[in-house]
Amino acid sequence: MSEAPSPQRSASTRPRPASGIPRWDAECDVVVVGFGAAGASAAIEAANAGAKVILVEVASGSGGTSAMAGGDIYMGGNGGTEAQRANGFHDTTEDFFRYMMMAGGPDADEERVRLYAEGAHAHFQWLKDQGVPYRNTYIPGKPVMPGTGDCLILSGSEYAWPFKESARPCPRGHLPEAIGETGGFMLLDKLAKRVHALGVDVRFQTRARALVVDEANRVCGLVVYADGEEKAIRARHGVILCAGGFALNEDMLRQYAPIRQRLANDGLSGGYDDGSGIRLGMSVGGAAIHMDELFVTLPFYPPESHVKGILVNDKGARFINEDAYGGRVAHFIASQIGDRFFLLVDDAIFQQPSPYAKIEIAAVGSTWEEVERELGLSEGSLVSTVEVYNRHAAKGEDPLFHKDASWLKPLDEPPFAALACHLKQAYYPFFTLGGLRVRPSGEVLTIDGDVIPGLYAAGRTACGLPRWGKGYSSGMSLGDCTFFGRMAGRKAAATPIADA
Amino acid sequence: MSEAPSPQRSASTRPRPASGIPRWDAECDVVVVGFGAAGASAAIEAANAGAKVILVEVASGSGGTSAMAGGDIYMGGNGGTEAQRANGFHDTTEDFFRYMMMAGGPDADEERVRLYAEGAHAHFQWLKDQGVPYRNTYIPGKPVMPGTGDCLILSGSEYAWPFKESARPCPRGHLPEAIGETGGFMLLDKLAKRVHALGVDVRFQTRARALVVDEANRVCGLVVYADGEEKAIRARHGVILCAGGFALNEDMLRQYAPIRQRLANDGLSGGYDDGSGIRLGMSVGGAAIHMDELFVTLPFYPPESHVKGILVNDKGARFINEDAYGGRVAHFIASQIGDRFFLLVDDAIFQQPSPYAKIEIAAVGSTWEEVERELGLSEGSLVSTVEVYNRHAAKGEDPLFHKDASWLKPLDEPPFAALACHLKQAYYPFFTLGGLRVRPSGEVLTIDGDVIPGLYAAGRTACGLPRWGKGYSSGMSLGDCTFFGRMAGRKAAATPIADA
Repeated sequence: MSEAPSPQRSASTRPRPASGIPRWDAECDVVVVGFGAAGASAAIEAANAGAKVILVEVASGSGGTSAMAGGDIYMGGNGGTEAQRANGFHDTTEDFFRYMMMAGGPDADEERVRLYAEGAHAHFQWLKDQGVPYRNTYIPGKPVMPGTGDCLILSGSEYAWPFKESARPCPRGHLPEAIGETGGFMLLDKLAKRVHALGVDVRFQTRARALVVDEANRVCGLVVYADGEEKAIRARHGVILCAGGFALNEDMLRQYAPIRQRLANDGLSGGYDDGSGIRLGMSVGGAAIHMDELFVTLPFYPPESHVKGILVNDKGARFINEDAYGGRVAHFIASQIGDRFFLLVDDAIFQQPSPYAKIEIAAVGSTWEEVERELGLSEGSLVSTVEVYNRHAAKGEDPLFHKDASWLKPLDEPPFAALACHLKQAYYPFFTLGGLRVRPSGEVLTIDGDVIPGLYAAGRTACGLPRWGKGYSSGMSLGDCTFFGRMAGRKAAATPIADA
Repeated sequence: MSEAPSPQRSASTRPRPASGIPRWDAECDVVVVGFGAAGASAAIEAANAGAKVILVEVASGSGGTSAMAGGDIYMGGNGGTEAQRANGFHDTTEDFFRYMMMAGGPDADEERVRLYAEGAHAHFQWLKDQGVPYRNTYIPGKPVMPGTGDCLILSGSEYAWPFKESARPCPRGHLPEAIGETGGFMLLDKLAKRVHALGVDVRFQTRARALVVDEANRVCGLVVYADGEEKAIRARHGVILCAGGFALNEDMLRQYAPIRQRLANDGLSGGYDDGSGIRLGMSVGGAAIHMDELFVTLPFYPPESHVKGILVNDKGARFINEDAYGGRVAHFIASQIGDRFFLLVDDAIFQQPSPYAKIEIAAVGSTWEEVERELGLSEGSLVSTVEVYNRHAAKGEDPLFHKDASWLKPLDEPPFAALACHLKQAYYPFFTLGGLRVRPSGEVLTIDGDVIPGLYAAGRTACGLPRWGKGYSSGMSLGDCTFFGRMAGRKAAATPIADA
């Protein structure tokens, strides 16, 4: 039996000198830690390149957190993927690049974004080659995990200010053909089958405990815990950390991502996002960056009609264009003073919110004055906000926050309602975006920019394409996991530590 | 000659194995890196405890960034310091503790805050014992670096919402007796004299380059660069990193503190805040935490009367109680969408802003409508904000943001003006608050919470009392530097590496 998983406890990851390893229990070229999308992709490419690969996974099966996702992968460029073109969307590499640079925020990694923008088109083919099935169908509007087996969806803020001003918008979320919210499971199932078919030595219920370093501070192996004891695995080409993020490690969240304390629900995870990959990387001097950034979203749509509502804080004031992606909206909510937030709707646009969003009706009235009073807001605060909004919306304008005209209508059809999107009550799913600083090749860097020989990272153990919560678009994480997981696998396979 | 300082470049800090050190050029018990307030305090206490101390400093003289400060130290508790009592202020340890816990933000370090709250009173005496002169005089109001030689000032958000609701307010900033803005220089001059008097081996123009680790991963020395070559110093008790923050390292700021990109001016520094101390700590697995947090302030007061004005964003909306400390205000400014911000004043409260604040008049009008139009804001947006504010202010209330009644008055005496507090134009001084995770003893911790034997940090190389920009109060950093610098010095002096 492996030790019981305890994501809250941060087990020691201090590195072990190779000189202190009594014997190697196994030897290979590349050790991959973690069997989610990044680890599977890394293992496939390393094995394809002829490397002998051992993949260790703490859980009893493959999939990790990736398998719980909708399976959406953010792709485009080169004129458009097959799915984009089939639905009349032309997507240039430059538009795709510019959107992802904006989405990456103030420290977007230009080299990484460029490689992805140019390579995503071919990556789509690679995914199909691994057996992942895709239709070429498109669902219009703003669906979230539709579960219909259709492929193309709008999954970010492409059509919203300020993104639409710099990059020609286009839907870029690509879902596998899977019924129900099982796209991630489908994706991971196909990748896992490929890993096994390639003869990768997969070891489940095996926890990565510490990196092994040689006298020149190169990573040359991994100490794992399995079957009740520690074992040492020699890795002639190094170790690729693909162990996910730290959404379950409350200790790390407290120190790195204070926004988490404003949210009531647990982080999204397959059960093992304890930050172990990041901690292993830090133990040998790897720099963890953008650790304060979370993906967090408020699923206030669907129903899509609610995008025509307006979001206000407890001062009765707006703070964001409501047609931005729910993830961007949630960040602007969390950066306001106060915990109470409301989505204002009128009779024309109201529909029952998704039950899983935990958005309840906070107040109803035949006038906005009544709603304001029932919410206990300061006299005139909410009323004047609605009045200003309605006046401009009637002209198809939103001079304050630049919401697109297609979502503008005066909220003037009573009865009116305020839906509670409170931070401590509504469902704000989250996972972590910060991680080890890496080159696109997966090579882990110190804060000085030095490569740590023999150490690679991919997926949410690394800080990759998605590194800014306000810019996250659905599908960016799995896109990053699979694309740069592959690159790390290839680089490690080609690089014996002696040459690193 | 030592190498030219190049704060922008992050020189490699990868650790050196002791087995690779050909010979020790010097040996001692404790090496202290950096001769600012933290390093001086550490060296004094280590030497007082009988340790042989070498202090290395990259600059040609002592003082560091601390010497550039106003010299304010945040102290209180135990019924009040001599200066507080002399001016009629009673300050309980619990009020002091609670304020500092709030000021430390969502991850305040309770153990550290408790020690400081209980010990600051005696620390004041220690500072006097080192020769730092203090008067017992008090300057009322909200002065910032008065430069009069008076002692006690209000230096935070003590009397502002929400702080005043949880901790009985009291002024706690203590300035040395120094004329002009030379309090920090005075403080550092006295501490430096003490360091020299105690026989500490001080080496200027000496850059810390890499830590030396023994076979058990303990820090047992330091490689420095001086006189054109590398030298190795053996430290039988370890190394204390007191090398300041990373306010000048744009590479680190980009990766850790994106708020910096919204500010036009350079970081506050004595010239060497290149993050070298933090980077050295990370090189051996030390965890750097809260690296996204900066102290940043907008000096919109003095003139104190401007606290009676209201701050609005480019939507014409308020977002903060304007009687909060300028540092808290600046963070709420930087978290808004848009770069344009205005302080609205009427004829009764307008005075010329401090020239160094770079706050200019953006618009003037005989009505608020005129001002709104001249600023190009959306019709009614600013006018309705002022109208709501004035209506409540006339009753001595601010139901939206809870500004204290003493600062409330309707802005109704024309002419009216909007002063430009734009992020890219006004002066927003900043320095970094993130740093190595440490125990109060200065022992550096990994992200797993393991102590790295032989490694200590204090001052802005560590993440200490001040770790939340929205809560920073003037004097917290120097208080942390001196108090916990002393603790690190004592702990290192008492702990040979073999016992660590």
